[in-house]
This record gives sequence, structure tokens and C-alpha cells, in this order.
Amino acid sequence: MTSVNPEKTRKELMLKASEIHSTPHAKVTVVGLGAVGMAGTYGMMIQGVASELVLIEAEHMTDKLEGEVMDLQHGMTFCRNVNIVGGSDYSKTAGSKVCVVTAGLRQKEGQTRLELIQGNAQLFKKIIPELVKYSPDCTLIIVSNPVDVLTWLAWKISKLPWQRVIGTGTMLDSSRFRYYVSDKLGVSPNSVHGYIIGEHGDSSVPVWSGLNVGGTRIVEANPDIGTEKDDENWNLIHKDVVESAGTIIKKKGYTSWAIGTTISHLVHNILKNTHSVLPLSINVKGLYGIKEDMFLSNPCVIGENGIEQIFKLRLNAEEQSKLQKSADAIGEVMKGVKL
Amino acid sequence: MTSVNPEKTRKELMLKASEIHSTPHAKVTVVGLGAVGMAGTYGMMIQGVASELVLIEAEHMTDKLEGEVMDLQHGMTFCRNVNIVGGSDYSKTAGSKVCVVTAGLRQKEGQTRLELIQGNAQLFKKIIPELVKYSPDCTLIIVSNPVDVLTWLAWKISKLPWQRVIGTGTMLDSSRFRYYVSDKLGVSPNSVHGYIIGEHGDSSVPVWSGLNVGGTRIVEANPDIGTEKDDENWNLIHKDVVESAGTIIKKKGYTSWAIGTTISHLVHNILKNTHSVLPLSINVKGLYGIKEDMFLSNPCVIGENGIEQIFKLRLNAEEQSKLQKSADAIGEVMKGVKL
Amino acid sequence: MTSVNPEKTRKELMLKASEIHSTPHAKVTVVGLGAVGMAGTYGMMIQGVASELVLIEAEHMTDKLEGEVMDLQHGMTFCRNVNIVGGSDYSKTAGSKVCVVTAGLRQKEGQTRLELIQGNAQLFKKIIPELVKYSPDCTLIIVSNPVDVLTWLAWKISKLPWQRVIGTGTMLDSSRFRYYVSDKLGVSPNSVHGYIIGEHGDSSVPVWSGLNVGGTRIVEANPDIGTEKDDENWNLIHKDVVESAGTIIKKKGYTSWAIGTTISHLVHNILKNTHSVLPLSINVKGLYGIKEDMFLSNPCVIGENGIEQIFKLRLNAEEQSKLQKSADAIGEVMKGVKL
Amino acid sequence: MTSVNPEKTRKELMLKASEIHSTPHAKVTVVGLGAVGMAGTYGMMIQGVASELVLIEAEHMTDKLEGEVMDLQHGMTFCRNVNIVGGSDYSKTAGSKVCVVTAGLRQKEGQTRLELIQGNAQLFKKIIPELVKYSPDCTLIIVSNPVDVLTWLAWKISKLPWQRVIGTGTMLDSSRFRYYVSDKLGVSPNSVHGYIIGEHGDSSVPVWSGLNVGGTRIVEANPDIGTEKDDENWNLIHKDVVESAGTIIKKKGYTSWAIGTTISHLVHNILKNTHSVLPLSINVKGLYGIKEDMFLSNPCVIGENGIEQIFKLRLNAEEQSKLQKSADAIGEVMKGVKL
Repeated sequence: MTSVNPEKTRKELMLKASEIHSTPHAKVTVVGLGAVGMAGTYGMMIQGVASELVLIEAEHMTDKLEGEVMDLQHGMTFCRNVNIVGGSDYSKTAGSKVCVVTAGLRQKEGQTRLELIQGNAQLFKKIIPELVKYSPDCTLIIVSNPVDVLTWLAWKISKLPWQRVIGTGTMLDSSRFRYYVSDKLGVSPNSVHGYIIGEHGDSSVPVWSGLNVGGTRIVEANPDIGTEKDDENWNLIHKDVVESAGTIIKKKGYTSWAIGTTISHLVHNILKNTHSVLPLSINVKGLYGIKEDMFLSNPCVIGENGIEQIFKLRLNAEEQSKLQKSADAIGEVMKGVKL
Repeated sequence: MTSVNPEKTRKELMLKASEIHSTPHAKVTVVGLGAVGMAGTYGMMIQGVASELVLIEAEHMTDKLEGEVMDLQHGMTFCRNVNIVGGSDYSKTAGSKVCVVTAGLRQKEGQTRLELIQGNAQLFKKIIPELVKYSPDCTLIIVSNPVDVLTWLAWKISKLPWQRVIGTGTMLDSSRFRYYVSDKLGVSPNSVHGYIIGEHGDSSVPVWSGLNVGGTRIVEANPDIGTEKDDENWNLIHKDVVESAGTIIKKKGYTSWAIGTTISHLVHNILKNTHSVLPLSINVKGLYGIKEDMFLSNPCVIGENGIEQIFKLRLNAEEQSKLQKSADAIGEVMKGVKL
Repeated sequence: MTSVNPEKTRKELMLKASEIHSTPHAKVTVVGLGAVGMAGTYGMMIQGVASELVLIEAEHMTDKLEGEVMDLQHGMTFCRNVNIVGGSDYSKTAGSKVCVVTAGLRQKEGQTRLELIQGNAQLFKKIIPELVKYSPDCTLIIVSNPVDVLTWLAWKISKLPWQRVIGTGTMLDSSRFRYYVSDKLGVSPNSVHGYIIGEHGDSSVPVWSGLNVGGTRIVEANPDIGTEKDDENWNLIHKDVVESAGTIIKKKGYTSWAIGTTISHLVHNILKNTHSVLPLSINVKGLYGIKEDMFLSNPCVIGENGIEQIFKLRLNAEEQSKLQKSADAIGEVMKGVKL
Repeated sequence: MTSVNPEKTRKELMLKASEIHSTPHAKVTVVGLGAVGMAGTYGMMIQGVASELVLIEAEHMTDKLEGEVMDLQHGMTFCRNVNIVGGSDYSKTAGSKVCVVTAGLRQKEGQTRLELIQGNAQLFKKIIPELVKYSPDCTLIIVSNPVDVLTWLAWKISKLPWQRVIGTGTMLDSSRFRYYVSDKLGVSPNSVHGYIIGEHGDSSVPVWSGLNVGGTRIVEANPDIGTEKDDENWNLIHKDVVESAGTIIKKKGYTSWAIGTTISHLVHNILKNTHSVLPLSINVKGLYGIKEDMFLSNPCVIGENGIEQIFKLRLNAEEQSKLQKSADAIGEVMKGVKL
């Protein structure tokens, strides 16, 4: 588009009243343009969440990036106008209120999980300092997996207050959980209130004891819910949640839409300073007997400056024990990572 | 999820007041789950356009379909609730107000364009009668390419009134056009008003004479705009629009987001009966001297019963001549198609 | 506007493709144009809830009605287009999916409450049959006060299934309750889950035992909450809720905005068939030991055909006893009403 | 609500992660709580335009103000959370991005228009410096009438750059104009593009020459449109627009909804930095031969820092002459005002 020289026509049409210089107040950066990053970006664009979107990709992906930016821009006429740009140069991200990191290596054949994390640690050492350099006041959102360890890493590397380094964690697991429970009861998922906490992964902990709908804890209607004794098998819902990502990847190749709405919803709640309660991967040191800096998901209150308050759930003995196992699993991985 | 038996718990929690039977009033079917169909579906879900979404795919694609439906459902907690189902059985689509067809074959190596269309004609002979059988009052939206010929085909096969068989046509081209013009002038694309008409493709016609912004036709500021004589080269914008799809496919492999917002916006305008003006591929017989049934894009007024009014643009001589060429190109292809 | 004859110009601009005849699929009627009816209508217009809005007022209020309709229409350019009309003739309401009744007499000096209700019964005998005549499949929403008795009356007069006759009841009280609790805890009201049930009025019952936030029942943090023993005085919140309408009327003359959002939210959930849980005034016969047809508020699942499911709350002894008193209060009034 | 002491319970439920201190990025102040200010505020609340709303009224109106704030807060549960506060103390407005002034005296019996303006000038001398003191970077929006003179006054008093002092001007007149034209043609008002410019009042100028729909100027279909010669009487539409406010005030007592959507739409476009084109009352010195500082409405591009570009309309001789009269009328009033 560089060869059109519109200046004469523009001057014929309009007087310039002031230089258009942005005072970015709802600027969001997304790093990584895989299916996840793009579903989140498209969601934020068409839901009018951000007023500026900056997409960052590695230089060797410039073609892909340019294609995605063009494709988004071409749909803008049917949305509220959002300024969308892309590149590999982080200076474009300056003044972002929120930076979302979806970039990450994929596990290679024969690679151990630890080797994968180590690889991602190297990647984060490049990405995170650049983001913080240009947007020192931003809230960092980590989506890349394994999200809990990578959020901890991002926090360490960024040197930001922990309140402003957040992983999407079990926000997605909880959404899946609420959907399946709602589907069983013939109720909107918005009207089912419950959380999956702990690790975003196999050791995640469904808090059956707190699950409620219509002002009633479901455990009062079914005291065995979630246990082996339950003859209605509600525990299969947690199994399905844990297997969801794997199942979807097997069926369609990747996950995108649900994590996309998760990203858009989370960023909206930060930018609009709603003080909503969401389960997010945060530093849980001091909670549930955990004594070291460690990122796990737990319901918390989110605002425009990050985490404001953290809920202290009344877990039953089994939930407490499962959460400890979840913490141990993460702790084990953390120990192996070299910063 | 079939093994959870929630009935006892549900009864403990709730009385059933009435059977939940749907009176579908904002039900939308999407046929074809490629990148285009999915971006449109995700758009309609998160923008709250439909209250029910049915996704249809061929049987051999069942896995992909199930994966996509799950992935959408898992994000519902963060949206207004929409009932989403999928399958290869058209009975699920019964009572749809709008059916969107994005299915289509891709051009194979060595295949001529006519052979491709002939293949798609066979496909449409399967899809369209099923849609009409279950939703005789629906409005059909064709997105598959070449959209103008396929919309004509869908109309012929469906036997629906032509007012209810519509191709997305140059709605996307016009959006791209408006975006590029807006970008040159420092104005929101929503505030640039103009159309590309004719074929959705190489022979499309930008109506420079009507392009306006801020209550002013741009041609009054630059009388040569769009022509070879224009030393500002605005005609490169049309060139870019025509090449957009190709450029994006080269860069990212497919187009999705812009056509997704196009679908969502169009369906919204039909379901909400807005009487908005949109450039769509419709039967233009009787317009601009065209004497046969032929589908080309032209601005028209859209409502919940399809096309309500059609604009008779005041084209200048060059635009009229280009439109005739566009019509000839389509007519040539139509002649070759065997119904 | 009757003297502009645009037909020749319209024909110069456009071909008519089809007669514009509406297939009303999101048509909503509002009866009564006081501050409540207007705040609800404005809310539905700017939130894009309905595609058609019909405003009905008594004939002697024609001027007021015409002024309101004009004022709404003049803002449409900045909204998604909604067809708004008004009049005193109910034939305009034909085919409404939802009819909202906000009309009602005001208490006159010296008039008893029962005399007031008797007067409103006469009014409803005119309004309700007209609504049902033209929209036999509609869901009726009663907003006028005293809402519980008037909803019962509307049900009796309408002869509709009780699932489709609903009072806004304590949906507003619960919203106030959630707001005040959220304000005390520094959390979004959307994240506080709890209900006030029973009568919309002095005898309403706050269900402290079920009130929860962040997956935790607040009663677990404060076992005395809502009782006289509580040294934090949370029961003052219920007192404030009960006195809210009176306080606001004293301060500004009437209530409007909160009941307006309540109406818009409820109609949205019906039209979009969301299956959300809302506390509404419904026929509670058979619930909590109530043996006669009687309308009181209780959480239930709402869809496009009205009430789908009703929650059976686990009330503690005090809540159960208060609810009984609430039922007795309403029953007493009902007895005095002559149909 | 001062007597509830929730701190112990809050601590039982949650850890405080960080002090909640606001970094106001979408804070909006509204001065004046008449029907106009309240319809604008309610619109911004339920459309999710602002994240913080501060309502300011004179001290003797404290009751009214408290009632309005409570009534808004009580509906928040059904909206995205917005922080709403009110008072007569301007320190609460600190850091607002946009300040909307709807306050103004009403014409008293026997008072001349100039005396009215002089009274409002006194009022503005109190309001404007307070707003600028606490929000030196805000954009000021003036809604009070006569809007053009008062916007000029606000600019003089504020000492802000003229780009950030804007009157709603003919944005409302243009909306009415587009609605009436759309109604005549059976088209959505969003699809009719045209402007009324000049004074917001009797001398306003409809730019018939630029009015267009579907890519066509209506003047091409009806060359006499807007003139006395036109046998279709389209000029009656402008007459109706000019008389609208008077007609509505006669019928319902005041105008509210249309100006409310106008305010909400304008503030949205500023906060989201959309670069949309809107007709606003701005300093037109240097435009159309006007040689002094004077505020009149004209289409311009609006962004988060106020006016970015101003359109130079191609007016025909009659329109130019009418605009001059409009400017003369305003100039005459301005001369009489003592600052």
C-alpha cells in the first residue's frame, strides 16, 4: 500500500486539527500467533475489548504475521474501530496495559517435559524483558504451557510485582467444568458457579464442595458427588475436563476457541477494572500451607492493576490433599528448571 | 459424557416446570467447518448473534466436527449462552432462520475452473435440498467460491424465492476497500462509505464515483481518483483488494477473520431485521441492462425475509462498462455449468 | 411527517424486491410509559435486546406516548436499528414474544392497599386480555406493584399456563443485595451469588445461608451473618434493600434505572433462550409446603417458553419461617381481592 | 450502609494482595443530573462505555444526586461492573478522560435569551475551572444549551486547546435527520449518511447536496430535494428536525433518550479512539470564510485527544449562504456575552 500518495486529496477534504498521537489507554500486546494467540486476538477485536492491538512474532514468521494482520484489518469495517499492527520489533508495544504471551515451543519427539520447559525458559528470557522494557506498568498474562511453571518463570524474569504476573491457569478448566455441569442440569453455564484449582493439567483439583447453582451447593443434593462412591459418576466430568485438551487436539489438531474467549474475557476484566472473581495462576505462597513462591490457580479478584484479593477456600480433607499433590508436582518441575 | 447420570441430583435440586422444547427464533446453521465456517461460527457465538448454532459437516469429517463443537462449547461460560450442536444429519437444522454454506471443493492440480464449479454443483445438489427440506422459510447465505455462480446454482437448486438466496459477494471486498481508504485518510473504516460491485473476484468494480467520507464524495477532491491519470495512484487500492485473498493465502495459508466478521455481521442484520444497506450477490436481472438471471453484487436493503430493496447506482461510463465485463465473465461461466 | 411524499425519489433510487412484512421474532410490547416502562424500553433499545418495540398507553396519554416514541426514534442512528412504534391500539402488539406490563395505579391519599389492588385488578382486566388476544404465545412479565399479587391476577385473567406468567419479583431486590455485599467485599456484584426470595416487599427473605462468593459461602466465614448476634451487622444490608425503593422515591421521586436494567436483562434471557437462573415471582404451589396457587419469588431457570425449572432451596429454620410469613402476608391480600 | 463492619469476614474470606488504587483510564465525569445527564449516564453504564462514572451536582441537589447514584448502582449486577460515585466535590473527578457538562439554567419568564446565557456564563465560571483543575488532560463535552455559545464560553474559561472542547451541536439534529430520511426510504438510519451543520437550533443547515444512501446522493434522484420547488416536500424533514425538541418538550416535558444515546456514543468514540466522523460543535475559525473564533457544528474526526481533522464540505451556494446566516446569528449572541 506504500505507493498511494493521498496527501493532496486528504488536504482537499480535511483540515488537520491536531497531530494524531496516541495516549494508549487500552493497548494490548499479544506475543505468538498460533491458533491460541489468533483466537484471542480475534475475540478481543470483535468484542471491542482493546482500542489498540499489537501482534508480535519472531522474525522468521513475518509472512504469517503480515497475513494475520491483514486478515484482521479487513474485517474492521464491521466492528468498532481498533488499531491493529504487527511486527517483530517490541518498540511497537510501548505503553501496553496488558501483554499476553502465547508463544512457546512444542514438545519434540523424544524430548522430556523438563527439556521442553528449559527451552521455553530460554524463549521467555528473550520475550519477557522486551515487554517489560517498553511497558513497565503492564500486567503480564501467560497462556503458554505448562502455564504454572512458565508464569513463575515470567515473574522471575520480569521482576514485576507478583500481582501483575498472571497465568490463565484453570480459568479454562473451570469454564469446561461449568459447561459440563450446566449441560447435565439444563442450566446456563453462567449460572453454575464453581472452580477447578491447582495445576492446569492432570493434577488439577475440582472443588466439588463449593460447586453451586441457584443458591444451592450441589453437594447438599448429592453428598457423594465427585467421589468414587457416587453412583451418578459426576467425577467423570473432571476426567473429561482433564482430557479435554488432548481429545480436542486429537480430533481437530489444536485448541483455540475456548482459550480465545478466556483471553478476551480476562483482558476485558483487567482493562475495565471490574473486580471480578476468576480462577487464575498466581503466586500462592502463604496459602493452604504452601511455603515457597509457586504459581497455582486459585480464585482471586482481578482489577486494572492485577490481582487485588485472593480467596482462601474452605477445602475438605480430600481437596486439600489433592491440592498438596498438585503443588508437589509443580514444585518438582520448578526445581529442575535453571534460570 | 454419556456415563454421568445426573437425574437424581437434578430432581433433588429442581422441580421441572415444563419440558424444554425449543421454538427456534434465532437458529442458524453453518455447513462446512473450514477456517471460514469456523471464524464465522466463533464470531456469531461471541457476538451473541444467534441463540442456536448447528454445525454440519460430511460424515468422514466427524472427528474434526466433534473437536470444533467441544472447543466452542468450552468457551460458553464467558459468553451469553448459545446452544451449539453438530453432526452430519440435517434433521438437526430444522427450523433455522438462516443457513450459511461455506462448504466447497478446492481446486485440484490441473483442474479447470469450470471443472471445479461442476464439482461444487454436485456438492450443492446434496446440501441445498437438505437445508430447504428442514428449513423451508430460511434465508440461504452462500459463502463458497466462486460465490456468484454458486449462489445462482443454490437458487436454482433450492427453488426458493431469489430474495432469500444471497451470496456474501463483494461485502468482503467492500470492507477491504473501505479499510484501505480509511487508513489513507486517518478515519475509521465505519465512516468511509463506498462499494465494490460486480463479481467477487478479478473483474470486481470499485465505484469511485460514489465513494464518500464526511458527507463529501472523494471524487470532488480528486477528480482523477481511480483512473490511470491519477498521480496519487488510488487505483492501487482496488488492485490490493483484488489481490487480498491471494496475498493472505500465500502468507498464512487461508483467509478466515475478515470473512468471519462478514458472516457474523450479515446474519446479525438478517436476524435483527435492521434494513441495513449491504453489497451482496443477488439476482440482478433487470438492473443495469442485464437481461438474464445472474448473481452479481450490488448494494441492497436486507431484512429478516431477505432482500427488500435494490439500489440502482448512478454509474459513470467507465464503471458501467466494467460492470458489463464483470457480468459477461460470470455469464460465460454460467453457460458452461450443467445443472 | 405525513406531508413528505418520497415515493418518486425512492423509486429513482431503488427497486423494491419484496414487500417488507415482518415475521416478528424478537418483538416486545411494553404497557405503561412511566419512569419504569421508559427505563426498561430505553435499556432494551440501546442494548439491542429486541428487534421490534411496541409501546402501549391509555388514550388520554397519547401526547406523552408520542413524545417518548419520537425521543427514542431520534437516537436510533447510534444504535442497532429497532422498529419502535406506539399507540393505544393493541392490534399493533400482535405476535409479541414478550409483553411487559408496567402500568398501574398509584396509591391515593386515604386509599387502603387493598383498594389499590382492587383498582389495579380492574385495570388488568382491560390490559391482559388484549395482550393475550393478539399474542397468545407470548410470555407475560408483570412489573407493576404489588408485583406478586398482580402477577397472580394476571395469570388468572390471562388463562395462560403459569410457566408463561412471571413477575420481576425479587430479581431487583437480589440485585440490590448483591450490589451491597459486593461493595463491602471489594468484588464485582456479578461475582456475588445470592438471592432474596419471597415477597417483593417488606417480608422478603434474604437467603444468607446460600450467599457465596469465590466458591465460598460467606456463612462459613461468619456463622452469625444476617442474625441479630452478628457484631458486623450484615443484616443492615437487608434492611437497606427493603428500604431502597422508599429511600430512592424520597430522594429523587421515583425508581427507574435499576428496574430498567432488570427488565432489559430478563427479556434478553427469554428471547435468547439462555436457561439462566433468576429469582422471579412464579406460582410456588407445591414448594416449601405451600398448598395453594400463590406467586412468590424463587430462583428458577428461564427460557424462551418461560419457566423451565424451579430450585428447591435448602432453607434453614429461620429462613423457612420467614418465608412462611411472607406467604401468609401475600395470602391475606389475595383473599381480599375480587376477580 | 456505614454501620456494616465487614472487615473480619472479608479477612476470613480473602487475602488482600494489593491496595486497590485506581489508575483511571476510562473515567468519565457528568456534571448536571437533569433528564439529559441521567439518560447519558444510564446509557454509558449499560453500554459499558466507561469504567468509572462520577456524577456532580450542586450541593442543594444532594438528595436527588444520592437517589440517582443508588438507583444506578442497584442495576449494576446485570451490567459489566462500573464504579459509580457522586457528590458536589470536584476532587472526586480527578483524572477523568472525558467531562460532560449538561448543567444549565432554564429560561425564566420574561428573561431574554442573552440574560439566560449570561446566567449560564456565571455557572460555567464555577464548573469549568474545577473540571480542568482536577483533569487537566480531559476532553470537555458541552451539552447545555445554547450549546454553540456555551462551548465557546467553556473553551475561553478552560484555556484548554480548542481541539479538546467540543459541543454535541448538531450530532443530535443529524441523527434526527437521518432517522426521518431512513423512515421515508425503508432503510436503517445507520445506512443513511448526511449532516446538519451550523447552529444547533433554528438556523441549522441541512446539507442536502451531500445526503447519500447506498452509495448514491439522493439529489441525483431528486434534484429539487430540500428546496421550495420540490413537489415531494423533503424540506419538511428539516422543519421537523428543527421543531423536534419543542415538539417533544410539549408532549412529554423534556428531551432525554436521543441526547442520552448521543452522549454515550460520543464518549465511546473518544475513549476507544475510533477516529469516527461526527458532526460536532467546534471552533470553525478559518473554515467557510469565518474569520473569528466561533463554535459551529461541522463533520470532524474524533479521537482520544479530541478533534483530529475537520471536513471542508463542498457546500452549494444556498447552503453556504445559510451557513453564513447561522454564523451571523451566533456571532451576534457572542458579542453580547460578557466573560
